[in-house]
Amino acid sequence: MDVNRLEQQMRFLVEVDKMKSVYRRTILIDKTRRESDAEHSWHFALMAMLLAEYADPEKVDCARVIRMALVHDLIEIYAGDTFAYDVQGNQDKRQRETEAADKLFALLPEDQAAEIRALWEEFDAMETPDAQYAAAIDRLQPFLNNYLTQGHTWRLGGVKSAQVYERMDPIRVALPEVWPFVDKMIQESIEKGYLEKE
Amino acid sequence: MDVNRLEQQMRFLVEVDKMKSVYRRTILIDKTRRESDAEHSWHFALMAMLLAEYADPEKVDCARVIRMALVHDLIEIYAGDTFAYDVQGNQDKRQRETEAADKLFALLPEDQAAEIRALWEEFDAMETPDAQYAAAIDRLQPFLNNYLTQGHTWRLGGVKSAQVYERMDPIRVALPEVWPFVDKMIQESIEKGYLEKE
Repeated sequence: MDVNRLEQQMRFLVEVDKMKSVYRRTILIDKTRRESDAEHSWHFALMAMLLAEYADPEKVDCARVIRMALVHDLIEIYAGDTFAYDVQGNQDKRQRETEAADKLFALLPEDQAAEIRALWEEFDAMETPDAQYAAAIDRLQPFLNNYLTQGHTWRLGGVKSAQVYERMDPIRVALPEVWPFVDKMIQESIEKGYLEKE
Repeated sequence: MDVNRLEQQMRFLVEVDKMKSVYRRTILIDKTRRESDAEHSWHFALMAMLLAEYADPEKVDCARVIRMALVHDLIEIYAGDTFAYDVQGNQDKRQRETEAADKLFALLPEDQAAEIRALWEEFDAMETPDAQYAAAIDRLQPFLNNYLTQGHTWRLGGVKSAQVYERMDPIRVALPEVWPFVDKMIQESIEKGYLEKE
């Protein structure tokens, strides 16, 4: 066995503990605190596992999407979480995240670095069926928390309904059977004043 | 589509948000707070993904172990986290957890309830190669955090080295190549006074 390889893997697995201290805008449904990236990634992976039947079974590989979920936000350890509706923060997001990926994945043995980076890049490009299913779940998870906390992050960001419809569009595309459920919650959020209509 | 089925799945996926407020004894490596069950489950799943090469490739199905990791602690939403070295708490653990499983999994459609429950029971029984690999990773994750926080939970519980050797034994069995790495850290923990020798 290559001891150096195991040490690299362990250093990486220790470094990613920092995902538990990257806090998102989303709060827990019990409102006790903001959700960590690690928690979001777990919830995303579990949702991908339990909602797989709504994805296209001929095109989507659920096990791959679960792996994608586990790694899709790792670069935020160095790049930080960028609020989805923050226009300015999203302008230099790509560069900050690429630099973060260079630094973080370099900790791993080359083959695993390439594998994890490829999964992250595929997720980020949102082009393959796996990445489109992943994008839908990645948006559904904070949407549910937002709805169940009276639009907490929408209110914070002064978000309008048209922005939420745009942000949630991957759900309409990848999970057409789930979409009416989400659409109904957006409409209810407008009625209840969680979201401004636009 | 069965709307009732989707509603059951959504209710379950909302209920499991509570995994983010079940706190373990383990603290984050940055020592800012205790780790949540959701965070532990994510870290466990990612470790299972990246250390799969040390498990027996003919017997262990890594994708299944990742699914096991995602669901293995769900019952703690109702049963609470039982500290590994708490003798009294472990006496009625099985009954508390079975009742929690009955309550929690009943939220899901029957087929998925059976699937998730079977994964949890397999994990808990530690008999199959998948469950043995999962047990090894489930123990390795908090072990690393403990070692890197000067034995935080060992000190809290007055834990002795013989107890840690017993608790970590699944790593020796399922990941023999990783074991010397863990053994060395246990020895260092004794030398540094994180753990009492026994």
